[in-house]
Amino acid sequence: MMHRVDVLLDEHGYPIHIGPGAMSNQQLFEPHLSGSQVAVISNETVAPLYLDELLKALGETEVDVFTLPDGERHKTLESYSAIMDFLMAKRHNRSTTLVALGGGVVGDITGFVAATFQRGVGLIQVPTTLLAQVDSAVGGKTAVNHPGGKNMIGAFHQPRCVIADSAVFATLPDREYRAGLAEVLKYGVIADAEFFAWMEAAGDGLLNKNPDTLAWAVRRSCEIKAGVVAQDERETGLRAILNFGHTFGHAIETLTNYRRFLHGEAVAIGMVMAADLSARQGCLPLEDAQRIKTVLQSFELPVCPPAELSDDVLHRAMGMDKKVVDGRLRLVLVEAIGQVAVSEEIDASALNATLNAADALCDG
Amino acid sequence: MMHRVDVLLDEHGYPIHIGPGAMSNQQLFEPHLSGSQVAVISNETVAPLYLDELLKALGETEVDVFTLPDGERHKTLESYSAIMDFLMAKRHNRSTTLVALGGGVVGDITGFVAATFQRGVGLIQVPTTLLAQVDSAVGGKTAVNHPGGKNMIGAFHQPRCVIADSAVFATLPDREYRAGLAEVLKYGVIADAEFFAWMEAAGDGLLNKNPDTLAWAVRRSCEIKAGVVAQDERETGLRAILNFGHTFGHAIETLTNYRRFLHGEAVAIGMVMAADLSARQGCLPLEDAQRIKTVLQSFELPVCPPAELSDDVLHRAMGMDKKVVDGRLRLVLVEAIGQVAVSEEIDASALNATLNAADALCDG
Repeated sequence: MMHRVDVLLDEHGYPIHIGPGAMSNQQLFEPHLSGSQVAVISNETVAPLYLDELLKALGETEVDVFTLPDGERHKTLESYSAIMDFLMAKRHNRSTTLVALGGGVVGDITGFVAATFQRGVGLIQVPTTLLAQVDSAVGGKTAVNHPGGKNMIGAFHQPRCVIADSAVFATLPDREYRAGLAEVLKYGVIADAEFFAWMEAAGDGLLNKNPDTLAWAVRRSCEIKAGVVAQDERETGLRAILNFGHTFGHAIETLTNYRRFLHGEAVAIGMVMAADLSARQGCLPLEDAQRIKTVLQSFELPVCPPAELSDDVLHRAMGMDKKVVDGRLRLVLVEAIGQVAVSEEIDASALNATLNAADALCDG
Repeated sequence: MMHRVDVLLDEHGYPIHIGPGAMSNQQLFEPHLSGSQVAVISNETVAPLYLDELLKALGETEVDVFTLPDGERHKTLESYSAIMDFLMAKRHNRSTTLVALGGGVVGDITGFVAATFQRGVGLIQVPTTLLAQVDSAVGGKTAVNHPGGKNMIGAFHQPRCVIADSAVFATLPDREYRAGLAEVLKYGVIADAEFFAWMEAAGDGLLNKNPDTLAWAVRRSCEIKAGVVAQDERETGLRAILNFGHTFGHAIETLTNYRRFLHGEAVAIGMVMAADLSARQGCLPLEDAQRIKTVLQSFELPVCPPAELSDDVLHRAMGMDKKVVDGRLRLVLVEAIGQVAVSEEIDASALNATLNAADALCDG
């Protein structure tokens, strides 16, 4: 069954099409191909699996394909520059359309290229991971990493549409799939207690990748994200709640050189830490913090930072996060399952306790 | 005397302050410094002349300064990347403000950094050339060059304000000053026959750099540009008329590796070529094409392309321009002094005649 979620923005709203086989449906692409040129950007893992299928759906159009190496460590200005060279060499012009076929890395970097090639060209996101379907492909954030921090260079650039094919989960490695579940759970924590409870109860059912279950989980996640983005396209306020767990998570990713954890895994740890901090500051009942951790553990996700990262090192890395405003750390705290708030009132000793990896956080 | 022109945009309009001493006026900067951090980006030629003055006007704020080498050939992704490294090393965050102190290269590259550092930070343009004051600092276009073409990588990012100090012309090399006059004349050609006639009559007066005359010329240029930009911020239509002469000009710049001509000089040649083509296609009286050429010659600007650039080579280079839509060349043609139109109806033999550098175009 196909679902459609509309992201309603002032100038350039767009549809998200969700369901098995979406990637093969030419009718979903056709309205969004403005010119006669298309460039598909993918990676060496995803292209062999889905490129042929996608090319058929792109029909008669002239298509050039650029294949990145796989992995977050290639989400750099160097890769961005290589794609620019490719588009120039293939003489793409301002009316070209870029199609991102891959996970978050491919989507973010292709989005940033689309935002800035000749000051902006069309973009279609075809996310092939759960994480990308519920997060990075929706909302118009694009970026590459800097050695000093994740997503430090980027732009806002909305896609013309997102094609979220539920059939891709069949080939998605289990580890990546579970990492995506962390972001799905995030939507429950920040905005929908019922959705959270559904995931809590679904347990093994979710891990079995039932396509209908997943299409629904992706749809609900996209609805929540689209609702937030529609209210705050440029992240001046409300949108910050989508970063729940991410300031901790990004610090962990940076300090482990983006190699040890998948993004969703780092976010899982970050959410547990943010919930822990919320409980320590007295704004969340301890048992709710525990519920979040328990569900993530049932997804076999990591829930505590590597022991070798001292609280000092973590604290410093968090200070480089984009969410820092004038030197003040701003974090998303949980007030109840389904309700969060951005806070600058961070208690230093509570934060230090949370940051200490040897703490009780990682025991239970 | 100080002038103020307001660029009226839907979301983020901004003022342009024009007049001698504007750069030293702290009150003009103060409302636009959002955070406690400021980074001034300048170049090795301009910084020794104006940095101290600017720093005084920035007052108590913590300021970091990055100095680029001088020249269009440094308007590259490499320079962009170096500025990003600098901002990261200095731990600038999302609330920082970048100040571009310099000509078009510094303004364009700093603008692109501001557009994409942490997905967008504040920008104040302090243009120190005539060209930058009337063109590149106004309108929100930012970019770097690619070896395959000028301004191929960039974004739209509006400044918070523009400070156009008329005192800077005293130190501006004559050649750069005259190159700027080409763009000033452009505004007359595209939108204001009276302004054109005023420049035609001003002759030597303009070359003497009278500050009041210049403040007025800058003001009128900014008014015309602001009016066009307000109607078409993202260059989907009307804004294309600002590119009068630029498709030819960019091709010449690209083919001479951005070294032989200043941008305004290339645009002067491009305007003469565009007017020549307009006359050949029968939409502009020959004597009006001649008037444009005569004024540019009175400014001692070049008016024909280098003889060694064949029409084939020029034609191909024009095909890489951003204004090409689906392989069709679109050019701004003159219908009368003060009135232009974008046309895709380019007569091939007329264009070839114009492109032929050995042609009568360069004789009279």
